[in-house]
Amino acid sequence: MAQLAHSVLVTGSNRGIGLEMVKQLVEMTDPPEHIFATCRDPTGPKGKVLRDLADKHSRIHVIQLEVEDQSSVKASVALVESHLNGKGLNLLINNAGVNSYASLETVQPEEMLSAFNTNVVGPILVVKEFLPLLKKAAKATSTEEMSCRKAAIINISSKLASIGRGFEVMLNPMLPYRASKVALNMVTVSMALELKGDGILCTIIHPGWVKTDMGTEKAPLSVEHSAQGILQVLANLSSSETGAFLDWEGRRLPW
Amino acid sequence: MAQLAHSVLVTGSNRGIGLEMVKQLVEMTDPPEHIFATCRDPTGPKGKVLRDLADKHSRIHVIQLEVEDQSSVKASVALVESHLNGKGLNLLINNAGVNSYASLETVQPEEMLSAFNTNVVGPILVVKEFLPLLKKAAKATSTEEMSCRKAAIINISSKLASIGRGFEVMLNPMLPYRASKVALNMVTVSMALELKGDGILCTIIHPGWVKTDMGTEKAPLSVEHSAQGILQVLANLSSSETGAFLDWEGRRLPW
Repeated sequence: MAQLAHSVLVTGSNRGIGLEMVKQLVEMTDPPEHIFATCRDPTGPKGKVLRDLADKHSRIHVIQLEVEDQSSVKASVALVESHLNGKGLNLLINNAGVNSYASLETVQPEEMLSAFNTNVVGPILVVKEFLPLLKKAAKATSTEEMSCRKAAIINISSKLASIGRGFEVMLNPMLPYRASKVALNMVTVSMALELKGDGILCTIIHPGWVKTDMGTEKAPLSVEHSAQGILQVLANLSSSETGAFLDWEGRRLPW
Repeated sequence: MAQLAHSVLVTGSNRGIGLEMVKQLVEMTDPPEHIFATCRDPTGPKGKVLRDLADKHSRIHVIQLEVEDQSSVKASVALVESHLNGKGLNLLINNAGVNSYASLETVQPEEMLSAFNTNVVGPILVVKEFLPLLKKAAKATSTEEMSCRKAAIINISSKLASIGRGFEVMLNPMLPYRASKVALNMVTVSMALELKGDGILCTIIHPGWVKTDMGTEKAPLSVEHSAQGILQVLANLSSSETGAFLDWEGRRLPW
């Protein structure tokens, strides 16, 4: 497999699918030159596994990034830029997100707003601040065809945000999660249109129901299998998938 | 036409489609006994037209209700209850909402959160607080079939929140509006499932692109025509339309 991208940034990469993607990226035959592994608190106990991994691989740069905090995002852009030596950022994976369990009868306004803030406003802030680096990467690639190798934004959403799947998805009392992720889907399709002229691909990925802290042990899919699938899907994305909603095996999902 | 409902509450009813629905409701051959016309500031200059209308019709009760403010919502429930004399509320129309123009590149986090607060959290708060009255109305009606006559929640959304319509709807730089309205659609479908057992119908209505302050003069549809269509659609809703996304002429819209 050809190099997925020269540079990749993954948010929420200290655990779960984010951490596993960073692991698999660095172990690729032709790994990215720069893997920016960001998380809220990389120096704390929750960042230890990621720090240990980065100690073994110089191409992993661990960077503090709190998606809801504009000054934190701006600071991370400056750090990423300093590593890129004038080059752009090819692939941005907005993986950080929160789950939130509540039904109509139990939900509190703060839970809704907090989910929107992390799962929708967060990715918007990250994209806005990294846009100059993404545009730079897109411009530096001569091919017209969009790809993660050129410049791409991948937003991790969920099949639970598919309204088209009907009552089946509504059974889980995860109202704030589902409402925020469907808003993220809308935002991603808007991004896809707005950034088409710049040659930046924007795609929504459902990682499957995965055995992580968020997915719980009941989930059928291992984190290794999910991350492997996602990276395989990313490697094959082209212009026809900008604005698409795909699962970890590349299947299109209903809105 | 039979009576649409014994009691109806409309939020954001001091202007636009909300005001027009109140006007047409009171002028029906068999009008509802109680029309609760709520808005943020009924005593201010923006409430004058509604006040004048209510002066002519004793069945219109003008009530202060700010959808984002839980104490205001609670106070409005107490007032509505005092008018209903032990009966429930049949029909709740969540019409209040804000528009918001911004693209990815221009949007500010505060604009996103403000749109989510008014357009998603607002209707949730209103539904939660009025739920006992809606349940009371549902219980008091012996027929199994759901209807606005029995108990219903109508959430006014927009075709601009249809992701399935693709890039066509993304052309308008209304990112906060579209993201919040698609979240409202998700919330409504969740409500529909959660309240099915209680016999409460939940439907999403797109009012068309209407000549209002929000829709501007460029809109093709008059406010009279839109409100007329909506009320006609509401009169015909049954169990098969709970969780549906319909336009003002009753046509189903893609998610």
